Amino acid sequence: MYQVDLNSDLGESFGSYTIGNDASIIPLVSSVNIACGFHAGDPDIMDKTVSLAIQAGTAIGAHPGYPDLQGFGRRLLQMTPQEARNAVVYQVGALQAFLRIHDTALQHIKLHGALYNQAAVSYPLALAICEGLAKAAPDAILLGLAGSQMLRAAQEVGLHTASEVFADRAYQSDGTLVPRTQPGAVLHDPQEAIARTIRMVQEGVVESVDKKTIPIQADSICVHGDNASALAFVKSIRSAFAENQIQVVPLKWVCP
Amino acid sequence: MYQVDLNSDLGESFGSYTIGNDASIIPLVSSVNIACGFHAGDPDIMDKTVSLAIQAGTAIGAHPGYPDLQGFGRRLLQMTPQEARNAVVYQVGALQAFLRIHDTALQHIKLHGALYNQAAVSYPLALAICEGLAKAAPDAILLGLAGSQMLRAAQEVGLHTASEVFADRAYQSDGTLVPRTQPGAVLHDPQEAIARTIRMVQEGVVESVDKKTIPIQADSICVHGDNASALAFVKSIRSAFAENQIQVVPLKWVCP
Amino acid sequence: MYQVDLNSDLGESFGSYTIGNDASIIPLVSSVNIACGFHAGDPDIMDKTVSLAIQAGTAIGAHPGYPDLQGFGRRLLQMTPQEARNAVVYQVGALQAFLRIHDTALQHIKLHGALYNQAAVSYPLALAICEGLAKAAPDAILLGLAGSQMLRAAQEVGLHTASEVFADRAYQSDGTLVPRTQPGAVLHDPQEAIARTIRMVQEGVVESVDKKTIPIQADSICVHGDNASALAFVKSIRSAFAENQIQVVPLKWVCP
Amino acid sequence: MYQVDLNSDLGESFGSYTIGNDASIIPLVSSVNIACGFHAGDPDIMDKTVSLAIQAGTAIGAHPGYPDLQGFGRRLLQMTPQEARNAVVYQVGALQAFLRIHDTALQHIKLHGALYNQAAVSYPLALAICEGLAKAAPDAILLGLAGSQMLRAAQEVGLHTASEVFADRAYQSDGTLVPRTQPGAVLHDPQEAIARTIRMVQEGVVESVDKKTIPIQADSICVHGDNASALAFVKSIRSAFAENQIQVVPLKWVCP
Repeated sequence: MYQVDLNSDLGESFGSYTIGNDASIIPLVSSVNIACGFHAGDPDIMDKTVSLAIQAGTAIGAHPGYPDLQGFGRRLLQMTPQEARNAVVYQVGALQAFLRIHDTALQHIKLHGALYNQAAVSYPLALAICEGLAKAAPDAILLGLAGSQMLRAAQEVGLHTASEVFADRAYQSDGTLVPRTQPGAVLHDPQEAIARTIRMVQEGVVESVDKKTIPIQADSICVHGDNASALAFVKSIRSAFAENQIQVVPLKWVCP
Repeated sequence: MYQVDLNSDLGESFGSYTIGNDASIIPLVSSVNIACGFHAGDPDIMDKTVSLAIQAGTAIGAHPGYPDLQGFGRRLLQMTPQEARNAVVYQVGALQAFLRIHDTALQHIKLHGALYNQAAVSYPLALAICEGLAKAAPDAILLGLAGSQMLRAAQEVGLHTASEVFADRAYQSDGTLVPRTQPGAVLHDPQEAIARTIRMVQEGVVESVDKKTIPIQADSICVHGDNASALAFVKSIRSAFAENQIQVVPLKWVCP
Repeated sequence: MYQVDLNSDLGESFGSYTIGNDASIIPLVSSVNIACGFHAGDPDIMDKTVSLAIQAGTAIGAHPGYPDLQGFGRRLLQMTPQEARNAVVYQVGALQAFLRIHDTALQHIKLHGALYNQAAVSYPLALAICEGLAKAAPDAILLGLAGSQMLRAAQEVGLHTASEVFADRAYQSDGTLVPRTQPGAVLHDPQEAIARTIRMVQEGVVESVDKKTIPIQADSICVHGDNASALAFVKSIRSAFAENQIQVVPLKWVCP
Repeated sequence: MYQVDLNSDLGESFGSYTIGNDASIIPLVSSVNIACGFHAGDPDIMDKTVSLAIQAGTAIGAHPGYPDLQGFGRRLLQMTPQEARNAVVYQVGALQAFLRIHDTALQHIKLHGALYNQAAVSYPLALAICEGLAKAAPDAILLGLAGSQMLRAAQEVGLHTASEVFADRAYQSDGTLVPRTQPGAVLHDPQEAIARTIRMVQEGVVESVDKKTIPIQADSICVHGDNASALAFVKSIRSAFAENQIQVVPLKWVCP
C-alpha cells in the first residue's frame, strides 16, 4: 500500500471577488493551502476557508505569497531575503490565529506563485524564509518543490519537509520543471498525467522530457480546483489511485 | 507604593516612511502597542520594533486598527462586527508570529484609533472582537478605555482586562472622554495633566469637566512618542511618579 | 416618442478576479459606469472595458468610489469632503487618460456604492466633489440619484446633470429610496418593475410605498449585469420599451 | 549663456507620513516630479503639491512608479509592458486631473525608481509606455536617462524628450550609470559634482570612471530634497551656475 497527499491552492477569493470552487474541491483533497491576504484571500475568506476545511476533515496549510493582489502573486517582486522572510512570517502568523479560533493546528506551509518559484532556486532567499518559519511555525511541514533549494534550506534549519510534484508538468533531467515558456511544459492528456503520477508515487521516478528516467520524491501532488475540468481530473486521479493501492492521506501521515 | 503602566503607540512607520521616535520612547515606557500593518506598520517594521522592545525590556502588545493606511486608522470604516473581528484576529496573529521569532510572548492587545473609539461605544462590535481574541490570544490582557463597552465585553468572554486613562484628556461626568471636537477636550498644561494622573492612580478618581469627582480605574496611562515635547512629558511624568511613590511597571504586573 | 438611458456598473473585475458579464451587458445598455481602481477595477481592466464599450458604441462614464477594494466600496469610510473630492478627482482623471488612449471622451460621472449614498444626503460632501468635477471634467454629465443633494450641488456648480432611477427599488413619498434594511425595499417581480419604469419615463411619476403618486425625473435607469437573470431583465425591459415608444439612447442625448 | 533645468522628486508623502521638505525645495528647482499614488503620494498630497509648485512658479511633471508603496517603487516588479503602460497612463491621468483643478498644464513625465531603471534598458517596456503617453499626454516632455532606451522609444513615438543627468553619479564609458552596487558609483564631494555638472551643461561631455571623455546631453539635472545637506547642495549648485552663465529654467524652455 502506498500513501500520497493531494494538495490544492484555495481560499483565493477576496472581498466580493470569488475564485475557485472551494466547497467542491476541499472534500476531494487531503491538504489545502490557504491564501493569507497578500496575493489573495482576506481575513473573512481565511476564516471561512478554515471552517470549510475542518468540516471536510482536510488538513490545513498556509500559502503565503508576494504582496501583489493585482498580480495574484505571480509576478516577481524584488524583495530582499529578510523582507521576504518577514512577509511570510506575517502571513503564516495571521492564518495561525484563525486556526486557534477554530481549535485546530497548522499542518504545513507552501509558498505561492512567483515566491515559490524564486525560493526554489535561490538558496539565500529560501534560507531566510525557512529560518523565520523554524521559529514562527516549528511544528509545521514545509511543502516545497521536489529537489528545490527551498527543501534543502528547510532541512538545514530542522523543519519537517515534504516534496511536491505536479501531475501535469514535464520535468527536465536534473529534476527541475520544464519552464512554462517552453513547448511541452504542460501535459494536456489527463490519462498520461495520471499514469506518470502513479509511477512517481509507486516507483519514485519520472521520465524527463529527454526520455531519461530520473528519481523524484512524491509526497504530495498539487491539483487545481478552479474549474469543472480540474474537479473532474481530481476525481479521476483519486479513482486511479484507488485501483493502484495508493491511499490519499494528509501530508502529516505521509511525512510523519 | 502604587503601580501603574505607561503605554505608547509605536511601530507606526511604513516602508520608507518614518513616524515616531521609537528608539527614544521605548525605554521610557513599560508597554508598547505595536501597529500590525493595517493602519500603520509593515512586517519589517514589526520585526524591528519587537527587537527594540525586547532590548529595552518593555512589554509588547498588539495594536490592530482599520485597514486604512492613508487615514492612519483614524477614519471610521463601516465594518460588520464579524469583519472587524477577523481583521483584528488577523493582525494579532501576525504580530504573535514575530514574537515567536524573538522568543517572547504577547502581553496585551489595544485597539487603535477609530476602531478603539467605535468598540468603546458599540457592544456588539466589542463583543465580536473579544470573542475572537479570547481564542486567538487567550493569555493576553485587553487594554481598553476605562468604563468602555470594550472592557465590558472583554470581561464577559473571560479575557484579562486593563483600564486605560489619558493624562491629557478631559473626562465627562459619566466617565467618557470629552470629544476632541469640543473645547477643553485636551489639557495643554503638562503640570495639570501630571497632577490629574497622579490622583487617578493614587485615589482612583478624576475631576470631570463639570467639576464632579468621578471614579476611574487607571491601570495604564497612554503617552505619545512622536515629538520632542512628548518625550519631555514622559520624562516629567516619570519623575513626578517617582516622587509620589508610583512605580512604572508593565501591565502584566499591574493586572496580574 | 420618449427617450431614456440605460446605465450599468461595469469594469468591476480586478487582476485575476472577474466580476460581471461585461461583454454581454455592454451591448444592451446605452451608458456604462466604469470602476476606477479604488473599490474595483484596475488599470488593465479599465483599458479593456473602455475598448469593449467603444466596440459596442456604448457611452462611457467614470464610476469612482471609496478606496476599499475588500468592501467593494459598499462600506462607509469617514472621509472629509476635501478627501472625498480628491479621491474622486484622482479616479476620474485616471479614466480620462484611458479615454484619450482610445480617442474618445467622457460622457458622465456616477459615484459608486456608499459614496453615492453618502453624497446623496450630505450637501457639503456633494458640493466638494462637484466643485472638483466642475474643473476636472467640466463637460461631463453628473448622473445622480433623483432628488439628491448630489444633483442639487452639481447644478449649483454648473455641471450638466442627469437623474437616475432604479427599476427594482421602492420609493418613499419624499422621493428617496426605501432603505434596503426595510421590508419591501426591493421589487422582486420583473413585470411590476418594468411597468413602474415605463410610467416613470412616460409620466414622470412613481407610486410610493405608502401609495402616493409622486413626481420623479427618470433620465437614466440603472440595470445590473452580473448574472443571468439580470441580463434577461435588461432584454425584457428593452422589449417593453420598444413596445411603448421608449427609445434607449445614451445619456448625452437624453440630457443634451 | 547656457540653460538647464533642475528637477526634483517630490510629493512623496502619504497620508500621515511625511517625506521630503517640499516647501523648501520647490522654490529652488525649476521642475518638480510629483508622485502619483502608486509608489508614494496620495490624492490629497498630489493636490497640495500642485498648489505649492504653482505658488513657486515651478513647472510640474508626473512621476509614476510601480504599485509598491512599501518598497517606495524601488523594487523591480515583473509587469508586462502592457501592464506597465496601463499603470503609467493611470497615474499620469490622475495627476492631470489635479492640474485641471488648478488651471495649469503638465510639463513633463519622468518614471520613478525601479520602473525608471527598467525602462532605461528594456526597449519593449519603454516602447509600450511611450505609446501610451503619446496618446494620454501628447504635449508633455518625456524626461529620461541620457542615452536610455526610454528616450529612444519616446523619440520614435513622437514625444518631446529631455535628457536627464545626475550630478552625483559616476558614468561608464558607454554613457550608462555605474550601478550603485559598485564602488565609486556615487560622488561624495559636492564640489566635484558641481564641477562635473557645469562641464556637462557647457561642453556636453563627462569623464567616465575609466577616465574617458564621453558625450552626454544634459537638459535637466536631478537633485534631491529630502534632507538639509540636499538643500544646501541645491543652493550651492545654483550659485555655481550663476557664476558660470548657466541659467536655471523649466524643462519646456530648455527643450522647446
